[in-house]
Amino acid sequence: MEIKILQEKLAKALNHVSKVVAGGRATLPILNNVLIRVDDKRVSLTTTNLDMAVVDYLSVIDSKNGVVTVPARLIAEFVANLPKGETVTLTAENEKVTVKTDRYNSVLNGTLADDFPELPGMDEGKTVKFTLSVEDFKTGLSQVMVAASNDMARPALTGVYFNTTDDTLYVAATDGYRLAERKLVEKVGVEVAAVVPAASLRAVLSLLDDNVEEVEILFDEAQVKFRLNEVEVTSKLVDGSFPDYRQLIPKDSEIKVDLKRDELVRVTKLAALFAREVGGSVVCSTKAEDGTFTIASVANELGENNSEIKTEVEVDGKVTLNSRFLLDALNVLEGKTVKVGFSNKLDPIVLKSEQDAGYIHIIMPLKG
Amino acid sequence: MEIKILQEKLAKALNHVSKVVAGGRATLPILNNVLIRVDDKRVSLTTTNLDMAVVDYLSVIDSKNGVVTVPARLIAEFVANLPKGETVTLTAENEKVTVKTDRYNSVLNGTLADDFPELPGMDEGKTVKFTLSVEDFKTGLSQVMVAASNDMARPALTGVYFNTTDDTLYVAATDGYRLAERKLVEKVGVEVAAVVPAASLRAVLSLLDDNVEEVEILFDEAQVKFRLNEVEVTSKLVDGSFPDYRQLIPKDSEIKVDLKRDELVRVTKLAALFAREVGGSVVCSTKAEDGTFTIASVANELGENNSEIKTEVEVDGKVTLNSRFLLDALNVLEGKTVKVGFSNKLDPIVLKSEQDAGYIHIIMPLKG
Repeated sequence: MEIKILQEKLAKALNHVSKVVAGGRATLPILNNVLIRVDDKRVSLTTTNLDMAVVDYLSVIDSKNGVVTVPARLIAEFVANLPKGETVTLTAENEKVTVKTDRYNSVLNGTLADDFPELPGMDEGKTVKFTLSVEDFKTGLSQVMVAASNDMARPALTGVYFNTTDDTLYVAATDGYRLAERKLVEKVGVEVAAVVPAASLRAVLSLLDDNVEEVEILFDEAQVKFRLNEVEVTSKLVDGSFPDYRQLIPKDSEIKVDLKRDELVRVTKLAALFAREVGGSVVCSTKAEDGTFTIASVANELGENNSEIKTEVEVDGKVTLNSRFLLDALNVLEGKTVKVGFSNKLDPIVLKSEQDAGYIHIIMPLKG
Repeated sequence: MEIKILQEKLAKALNHVSKVVAGGRATLPILNNVLIRVDDKRVSLTTTNLDMAVVDYLSVIDSKNGVVTVPARLIAEFVANLPKGETVTLTAENEKVTVKTDRYNSVLNGTLADDFPELPGMDEGKTVKFTLSVEDFKTGLSQVMVAASNDMARPALTGVYFNTTDDTLYVAATDGYRLAERKLVEKVGVEVAAVVPAASLRAVLSLLDDNVEEVEILFDEAQVKFRLNEVEVTSKLVDGSFPDYRQLIPKDSEIKVDLKRDELVRVTKLAALFAREVGGSVVCSTKAEDGTFTIASVANELGENNSEIKTEVEVDGKVTLNSRFLLDALNVLEGKTVKVGFSNKLDPIVLKSEQDAGYIHIIMPLKG
């Protein structure tokens, strides 16, 4: 195997594929490696952690067929430190890989490619396909991933649920305490109901740069593939059914207030400082007579806090919730005005944006 | 006690003094607190970790005498999140501190100031004083602190040695494997020989901002004080004598090469990647006939690496050293050209800058 390529291109591709490598800590040593393959002028770098794989297709100056694997982080850091503008030659002889420029010469100990565990290919004839602008993809996924769970005991909740209803594609995530849903594409013409691991989506998001304009998403029964220009991320789907979440979203709320997002963020942060010792618990209340929305922390060892926002409100109300969840939601909400809705019972708090109709975030209240 | 002050000013001062607070993890709880004192219009904030103290003198709109302590991180974060431009009123009643603006109102649980451990004052009549420009202070200290030890078993090596010789002030640090010395001020007219904890110097460096132009340094027998505008850092000196380091610096080296700093950094980084499994050990060698300086890593599980720099050199030589120490030195060396000197024996490697005569860095070789 031999590749001649510009340092910048190789460094960028190695940086891409290194993102799924577990930093040398993988249980199966070959998972720390990148598979370098030249097959009839088609040159690719592949890494995998068994749940997902990243492939980067390279445009090279010259190449000779062959395949080998070498430690991904080591070769990525090595090539990143070579001078820009120079031509790098990679040559494999058995499991030895030589990296060469005019003045630099290194031999990396690799592994034969036979044991490299590749994910099964997808039969593209049998897939469902969506195409999104990179902005819609980035914003939409970030807005729901915040609500995904880290608890591997309920695998379906650790993912993002891609689902179609009424010919529209939605993404949703919930950890059982909060839930976020975002409308992605209308008139899709196909159907899907699949849970994509949040970890795989984080990898995809980390691979988006200014050169990527569109994301192509392909689902089959067991896998999903994201195409971003010359990079492809393939991930297994989460095995397990996502809860029927739409029934959890309240149809209406008794108390409704419109608040400036910046101001609500500020008062929530202030209250959260005092809520550390009580698990982040804060009390939101409205007073129609004074025209106020108040966030208060519960008095505790640290002290207590009361912050007020003037607003129009018609009904007095009170709800206790986790300030961290509120801040998480406010951080991903687009637009200047937040529409907050809640009821004087154990119904969830509903957060929407005045400027962004396709998004809804709900938070379960705490017992006050 | 009462203080009326602009949010920005209070936030900045609280940020300053919070830097010495151990993040709520201090063994003595009151060390997590900031002492707020108003004494005849003089308003100060003080924190301490027993080894050092930071005092920030505040200019306020109005004040009433009194003293109290409150958790430093909590009040710092709280005030930082209040809106800019507003006037903040701090009021203490026993151990309760109220923080108020127009719309925000919080009560922090503090502690009476009686138990707050203040460092002894310095008798300024009996001190030795130096004044440095902030640039000289920053550069000089950063250049030597890198060589200080973290090993508390030899306390004197965990500090920076301020010492005068021939009417010139020097700073030096060594961890036993490397040593750095920098000339700071000539014609000082006074004498000093004191070891300042590197941790205290890091605190001082973190407090320098664009408004600080000069650093005033005062030593007495047991303490040192750094004055940066309205902020004062007082630190105990390290008890223990610093080694007679000047005798360790070689008078001359057999092999001398001038190398471009950038290029030497690059080849050292490349070699260091392969030297991870062998404790960072790399071999530097010169070949007079070819006019080359080469860094090579020892062949090991990862592979091996050879990088070459063309240069003028008159003697063949070879020395083994820790690549991390070499990189640390190159990172703090000023100027474009590094003068490297070594000998074909166990003498230290000497690094100087062509453009900066006041600095010397030596590294002990490893057994090859």
